[in-house]
Amino acid sequence: MYSIKELQSLISSEVDNEIRLLNSLEPKNLYEPVGYALSMGGKRLRPVMVLLAYNLFNDSVEKVIPAAIAIEVFHNFTLLHDDMMDQAEMRRNSLSVYKKYNENIAILSGDAMSIMAYNYLLNCDSSNQVSMIRLFSETALEVCEGQQYDMDFESRMDVSIQEYLNMIRLKTAVLLAGSLKMGALAANAPEKMTAQLYDFGLNLGIAFQLQDDLLDVFAVQEKFGKKIGGDIASNKKTFLLLKALELADLQTKSIIQDWIQKKEFKTEIKVKAITDIYNELNIKKITENCIEDFYQSALDIWEKIDVEKERKAELLELAKMIMSRDH
Amino acid sequence: MYSIKELQSLISSEVDNEIRLLNSLEPKNLYEPVGYALSMGGKRLRPVMVLLAYNLFNDSVEKVIPAAIAIEVFHNFTLLHDDMMDQAEMRRNSLSVYKKYNENIAILSGDAMSIMAYNYLLNCDSSNQVSMIRLFSETALEVCEGQQYDMDFESRMDVSIQEYLNMIRLKTAVLLAGSLKMGALAANAPEKMTAQLYDFGLNLGIAFQLQDDLLDVFAVQEKFGKKIGGDIASNKKTFLLLKALELADLQTKSIIQDWIQKKEFKTEIKVKAITDIYNELNIKKITENCIEDFYQSALDIWEKIDVEKERKAELLELAKMIMSRDH
Repeated sequence: MYSIKELQSLISSEVDNEIRLLNSLEPKNLYEPVGYALSMGGKRLRPVMVLLAYNLFNDSVEKVIPAAIAIEVFHNFTLLHDDMMDQAEMRRNSLSVYKKYNENIAILSGDAMSIMAYNYLLNCDSSNQVSMIRLFSETALEVCEGQQYDMDFESRMDVSIQEYLNMIRLKTAVLLAGSLKMGALAANAPEKMTAQLYDFGLNLGIAFQLQDDLLDVFAVQEKFGKKIGGDIASNKKTFLLLKALELADLQTKSIIQDWIQKKEFKTEIKVKAITDIYNELNIKKITENCIEDFYQSALDIWEKIDVEKERKAELLELAKMIMSRDH
Repeated sequence: MYSIKELQSLISSEVDNEIRLLNSLEPKNLYEPVGYALSMGGKRLRPVMVLLAYNLFNDSVEKVIPAAIAIEVFHNFTLLHDDMMDQAEMRRNSLSVYKKYNENIAILSGDAMSIMAYNYLLNCDSSNQVSMIRLFSETALEVCEGQQYDMDFESRMDVSIQEYLNMIRLKTAVLLAGSLKMGALAANAPEKMTAQLYDFGLNLGIAFQLQDDLLDVFAVQEKFGKKIGGDIASNKKTFLLLKALELADLQTKSIIQDWIQKKEFKTEIKVKAITDIYNELNIKKITENCIEDFYQSALDIWEKIDVEKERKAELLELAKMIMSRDH
């Protein structure tokens, strides 16, 4: 049994090896940006989930490393293309790929990463290989759907909470769920457990994204990586905003809509005005309750997974780590 | 045995079915552009090659249709992203995807197409499925490499003929080669023949691209879809230009380089000046000889393929069709 820290350290050094390899490949303008994109990655959460799920059933985690790398390459591919679509110039204090290189290089090296993810997966020796590729490919397409819904929501004022939850399920949660299921499939786990791990990851992923929405407004600035209120400033249709629009009376609703339509404003004033409305409407508590519901659903599934408690303890640690944002 | 025309008609109606299906999927802004991109396709050359190679060994061509669609979806994905990278506003008299929709939609629906290609392939029932996916994925990455080399060449004046041939091998030929091999793999053809079909397609693909270079300068305008001399006007490093730079004396070389560096010029005058140099240096004949060499290599391989002549006649027809540009 490996601890999360050990798995993080293992996968980090494997990814670093791949980055070194990528920097030796031609054409340089294709593979060097891929290495750069991978080098920006943080705590390697998703590949750790692949290894951890595999490790529930099998100690030879080195066998599933190619699948873990596949997931990490795919995740960083989505960040690379998303940054370009969002015109986000920075990622984790580094220039995003399209800014460091150029847009054409960002498009094409992203395309290559998406294909390379499959190539890594094809290097993973497992009797379940086709199922793993199928899971990966279906998940990858769902992530694209989620990203499109997210972009569609930018120009819509009538997004329902249900639509929003579906969007974050696709954009964020299915990849966490798929990472766990991938590890379980590679280890030939029983179908019931691969499904439970998927559902555990799905609920955890939704809780995780809702917390991301919450922290963007209510985090303590010192502990938060980004600027507080970024979502409010950019009119992002978060759970908080959609819930506020749902609960607000006509007058408050029209104040929110005015702020959304305003082209010129002082960011601090807009953030304060919307945060005040959130406070009036008790949005913080409502969001916390919703997060708790999804988190609790994940824990309920965890309880049912038929693996000895000691072995599955690390999975619970992972859930706590994700929700404590220590990643 | 099916004729090329029958296979074209079969795959066209299958692709049309997929386009109808795509137009019913959500999110619309993701899947409708995919359908649009597919609807621009011409003679469905690559999927026909999949069917035709399969048909060399097996008459139930309907079984390999998902793999044929996978190749067509991938090919149209590359066109979609290439058009955006090249800022090519039109394709076959229609607006290219990024112009009809927008750049973000073009990036994301392209990403989805690349993934969907794998999903189609996963729907192809064959005992060789993993080999087919591996072939596809390796080929797809090579196409990305070819596109990057092509972009790199734009800003280089020292591209060698060898580098150029390697670029068109990757950008164009491997997908034709891979299409034939894909059909053969699906039909469980012997390894020797799948390799022969690949090499046949590779040589044919290189001949095909060289002829494309040649026609861009020396075609009869009425029979040519595009404007004659487009490559010359845009300083594209074609076989013709690179050969001319290789053969020219210092004075002629500097005339060519002056034209390349010139920012303002009348297109007709530049095209005529460079064409005159090509004529002086006998570039047309040299290119024709090079095309003939690759075409002949393809035919030599065709001769050796151990399938009865009658059955493999259609493959020869395909080669002739490709080189006559009746597609």
